[in-house]
Amino acid sequence: MDYAGRLRALAGRMREKDIDLTLLFDRDNVRYFTGFRLNQAACSILAVDREGCPTYIVAQLDFERAKRECWIERIVPFPEDAPNRLSALGPLFHGAVRRVGVEKASLTLRHAEYLRGLGRTGVELVDIEGLVADLRLIKTEEELIYIRRAAEIASRVMRTILREIRPGATEAELVGLVEYLLRREGAEGASFEPFLMSGEEAAWPRRVASGKSLQRGELALLDMGAVYEGYCSDITRTFPVGEPTEKQRRIFRVTREAQEAALANIRPGVKASEVDHAAREVIEAEGLGEFFPHLTGHGVGLSIHEDPILDRGMEMELRAGMVMTVEPGVYLPGVGAARVEDMVVVTQTGYEILTDVPRDLV
Amino acid sequence: MDYAGRLRALAGRMREKDIDLTLLFDRDNVRYFTGFRLNQAACSILAVDREGCPTYIVAQLDFERAKRECWIERIVPFPEDAPNRLSALGPLFHGAVRRVGVEKASLTLRHAEYLRGLGRTGVELVDIEGLVADLRLIKTEEELIYIRRAAEIASRVMRTILREIRPGATEAELVGLVEYLLRREGAEGASFEPFLMSGEEAAWPRRVASGKSLQRGELALLDMGAVYEGYCSDITRTFPVGEPTEKQRRIFRVTREAQEAALANIRPGVKASEVDHAAREVIEAEGLGEFFPHLTGHGVGLSIHEDPILDRGMEMELRAGMVMTVEPGVYLPGVGAARVEDMVVVTQTGYEILTDVPRDLV
Repeated sequence: MDYAGRLRALAGRMREKDIDLTLLFDRDNVRYFTGFRLNQAACSILAVDREGCPTYIVAQLDFERAKRECWIERIVPFPEDAPNRLSALGPLFHGAVRRVGVEKASLTLRHAEYLRGLGRTGVELVDIEGLVADLRLIKTEEELIYIRRAAEIASRVMRTILREIRPGATEAELVGLVEYLLRREGAEGASFEPFLMSGEEAAWPRRVASGKSLQRGELALLDMGAVYEGYCSDITRTFPVGEPTEKQRRIFRVTREAQEAALANIRPGVKASEVDHAAREVIEAEGLGEFFPHLTGHGVGLSIHEDPILDRGMEMELRAGMVMTVEPGVYLPGVGAARVEDMVVVTQTGYEILTDVPRDLV
Repeated sequence: MDYAGRLRALAGRMREKDIDLTLLFDRDNVRYFTGFRLNQAACSILAVDREGCPTYIVAQLDFERAKRECWIERIVPFPEDAPNRLSALGPLFHGAVRRVGVEKASLTLRHAEYLRGLGRTGVELVDIEGLVADLRLIKTEEELIYIRRAAEIASRVMRTILREIRPGATEAELVGLVEYLLRREGAEGASFEPFLMSGEEAAWPRRVASGKSLQRGELALLDMGAVYEGYCSDITRTFPVGEPTEKQRRIFRVTREAQEAALANIRPGVKASEVDHAAREVIEAEGLGEFFPHLTGHGVGLSIHEDPILDRGMEMELRAGMVMTVEPGVYLPGVGAARVEDMVVVTQTGYEILTDVPRDLV
């Protein structure tokens, strides 16, 4: 990956906004520039000055590995359990630092208050959340290699799990199997807490796997994804345990048709809300609108949930190289939950599907 | 669990500090009062007024389930992907609300800025992080039932994994197996990203499992834990792949002796730093002090990492009912990593070990 190029792009945007120093705390943003994988329980901070020069601040425990594996030259450790891990930032706040770029949706108030007290006369915190999100929005060919691989791993695991579906298997055990298979297939782990929800309770919806076992005659829904070299994937399939009922077939069919309608609208220049509208229209025409309580899709990259958001009121125009999910669903009390979710990349003329698992009710 | 009693205790502390409204965003704090399990990808907010009366704000997607499963009566949904999910809080900011309790180490700057603009003349944000941590510090008998169960699940999984250790198995596959077994044994999932690190690179230390396979003659270290009904466990074992060398035996022995020394100091009235000192002294006496780069232990409860912190400079006095890990380690370049970690609860006269896996080098 061209990490140095990414930093140059960031420095360019910083100059436009007259930002003296940027401090990134969000783990996905940090990884975008460092490429460095951390345990989910660990944290780190990336500081970038006006010239685009990076300082990477990691926990003492990760210091030796970061020096060996991370491309950044200046790496500084902070004591893991110190009352204030930000003390390592002090030397970066020399007299000229006035405007500091931070992610306001990630920076905690405690850290913000500390930062404001640094510098000669205090500093002004400027939100650069959108600026970095914008840099990450269009995926390069190199990023797409990783994203494709993440989608491939998730697809393979989903195909294996579909063969394991049988009455008596518990939701929790199947989710455990997903986690095992993701690692075995080369993923860094799951891209979010996978869940399998079955039966009528799935209609609430129940977004956590429970100890409940699958019963013949139920619909079950599995939502999961992989992380490969930091990049995420996300896929959902719905499957009947035994022979599906007419009502189950209907909500599944509507979901599939809504997904097709959304996909048919994906191409450069279309607004995110238009894709959402296409899916919603299908479900509403069947009188099921109130049972589709979420978005039609979301961007995927280093974060499992990023721009663009395909939902009502989202005016962002799609562009080639954006990667997103398309996942309308119907959650009908007394029947269950149906959703089909795939990942696509926007191409010059339309879209390409990245996930590869049969989409029918099998 | 006595959730209503917990809220009464919170309301009492709020009155002492003249706080009109508390807003909790930290998922562990929220679960402490609601008992409600959310997918790790989901978030929610708990608002508590001066009288201790709770309003639980959850994503639209979790609304129906929360109404059914959560004990709190007033549950309010927020739209999942709205630009501002805090808009649901508006009605709580009536004229009399002036001082608002928040967790400054969890609340984001964006949310803080929004909250400050609410109320008739703006509000003052008061840090209540420590206040809630204090309520959670001493575990009740009921909490200990869950913590014991989490420790039992992790112990059982660790014993199974120790039998799976063989040259050729990859770190990632074994970690996947841990995740599978945790779910199968009834855990909600892993209490943090489990990792297995082997060979000389483990000395950096490498806190993530890689695709590397175990080689005969290496030391390997597995750190993992379970979540049961929200409560965490944490355990580490070190094991040789084949016959251990003299150097490997030595760092393991020092680690074990350091753990014993720390344990021997655990009882009510002892300072956290004294327990840490006892472990550190053993390792330093062997000339290995610089290769023990972390704390001796940390509290465990609804969070995997909470008070008390057993480290240098930590003056908190241990009290009966506190639960913590004891986990000194030695990371020696050219040899590898050794650590033994167990969980204990402080009793009236000393401590009781909650984890149950042989502690020798097997």
